[in-house]
Amino acid sequence: MSGPAPAPPAAELLLRLEIEAFHGAYCAALDEGRIADWPRFFTLDALYRITARENEEAGLPVGLVYCEGRAMLEDRALALAKTEMFAPRYLRHYVSNVRVLGSDAGVISAAANYLVLQTLVDRPTTIHQAGRYHDRFVRDGGHLLLRERHCVYDTLVIDNALVLPV
Amino acid sequence: MSGPAPAPPAAELLLRLEIEAFHGAYCAALDEGRIADWPRFFTLDALYRITARENEEAGLPVGLVYCEGRAMLEDRALALAKTEMFAPRYLRHYVSNVRVLGSDAGVISAAANYLVLQTLVDRPTTIHQAGRYHDRFVRDGGHLLLRERHCVYDTLVIDNALVLPV
Amino acid sequence: MSGPAPAPPAAELLLRLEIEAFHGAYCAALDEGRIADWPRFFTLDALYRITARENEEAGLPVGLVYCEGRAMLEDRALALAKTEMFAPRYLRHYVSNVRVLGSDAGVISAAANYLVLQTLVDRPTTIHQAGRYHDRFVRDGGHLLLRERHCVYDTLVIDNALVLPV
Repeated sequence: MSGPAPAPPAAELLLRLEIEAFHGAYCAALDEGRIADWPRFFTLDALYRITARENEEAGLPVGLVYCEGRAMLEDRALALAKTEMFAPRYLRHYVSNVRVLGSDAGVISAAANYLVLQTLVDRPTTIHQAGRYHDRFVRDGGHLLLRERHCVYDTLVIDNALVLPV
Repeated sequence: MSGPAPAPPAAELLLRLEIEAFHGAYCAALDEGRIADWPRFFTLDALYRITARENEEAGLPVGLVYCEGRAMLEDRALALAKTEMFAPRYLRHYVSNVRVLGSDAGVISAAANYLVLQTLVDRPTTIHQAGRYHDRFVRDGGHLLLRERHCVYDTLVIDNALVLPV
Repeated sequence: MSGPAPAPPAAELLLRLEIEAFHGAYCAALDEGRIADWPRFFTLDALYRITARENEEAGLPVGLVYCEGRAMLEDRALALAKTEMFAPRYLRHYVSNVRVLGSDAGVISAAANYLVLQTLVDRPTTIHQAGRYHDRFVRDGGHLLLRERHCVYDTLVIDNALVLPV
């Protein structure tokens, strides 16, 4: 059981603002198709995963996408940069309900709801994917970086042919 | 007539952050299906209402849902917990455009736009309900609690068979 | 190439909060149909533009809507106020991923993702327009005002018959 939390201290409120700024920069890279920038939001040893909610809730580790380490993210980014042109589409990310869940030994746990909209040429804008980010951030110099991002999506009927990062 | 407001003082900006944290916790409870936690976000004498925008604008007090007092919210939560399993679905809440509208004798008036997406098994994610929260918060110890939440929805064509809280 | 930015200083975080408050007030005016209030969010010499993303990216200045100066915005608001009643609909704006991009000589550059949902009588709520605000704000007394707003939309299939402001 968990109800409303006590009013967060000002430091935590400011930390949430900082995380929101991170989401803003991260999503702008994806929305603008700067896929080569995407791995730069992660630590060298980062874990990135996209998993269906039904798998996550069943405790199944299988995922649509699984990357361990920035090198794998870079491989993925490179592969996508090459294939992307065959399926022109616009993506747009909306991140809301950002929550700071805790901080331990320099690792900040946070979560947020995301919505990715997709627009194909001459088609209406549609819901591509709705889900939740489960994140672990660390500081690297003045930056926040993702050490872990687990994207857990509700949307089971998605276009798996070209799995873009979220 | 009302245009842009003067820059809010820092205290009001921080209050908005605190309200956003409340929305984050409230929506996480609903998104995760923790319906038993839902009444805990309200005061004992709280008023909770879901009403169509056309009724609201016509000054008609009728609503899809009307609960007076936390006991009624708890009854509702209990009833939903029992029926929920017959209609498995994922919900996801997106709250944005949070506004602090004023504060009087310890009661904080605020509003926000909400969007609830729904995913049924093997179906695409769809818009379940779009609307606006009209809230009155009070402080109880270190917590914000809802004394009033009026959910005014735009979406007239909704699945009324199982009216979930928003 | 651009990855995560350094943690923004507190002043920039507070500025973003202020801009979010502006979006909240601006969108509330549009959502509530207070179209006459809309021009008041702009400076007298403001530029307002709605352009398709494909035109924007091709460097084509053509747009769906182009207004130079508040007087043109007021003309537009007046025209819309007269026609609006023939097509009753509810609009709802969701602004997220707000970014402060810089500040130069009192002009603040910012961007945000917007989503406009539309509900027509007896129809489900649908995605009307998804896009991005590219804004330049200035301070006028205690207020932020838009000197420039470029709305760049992804959604190519939109109801052009009645082009409402976003």
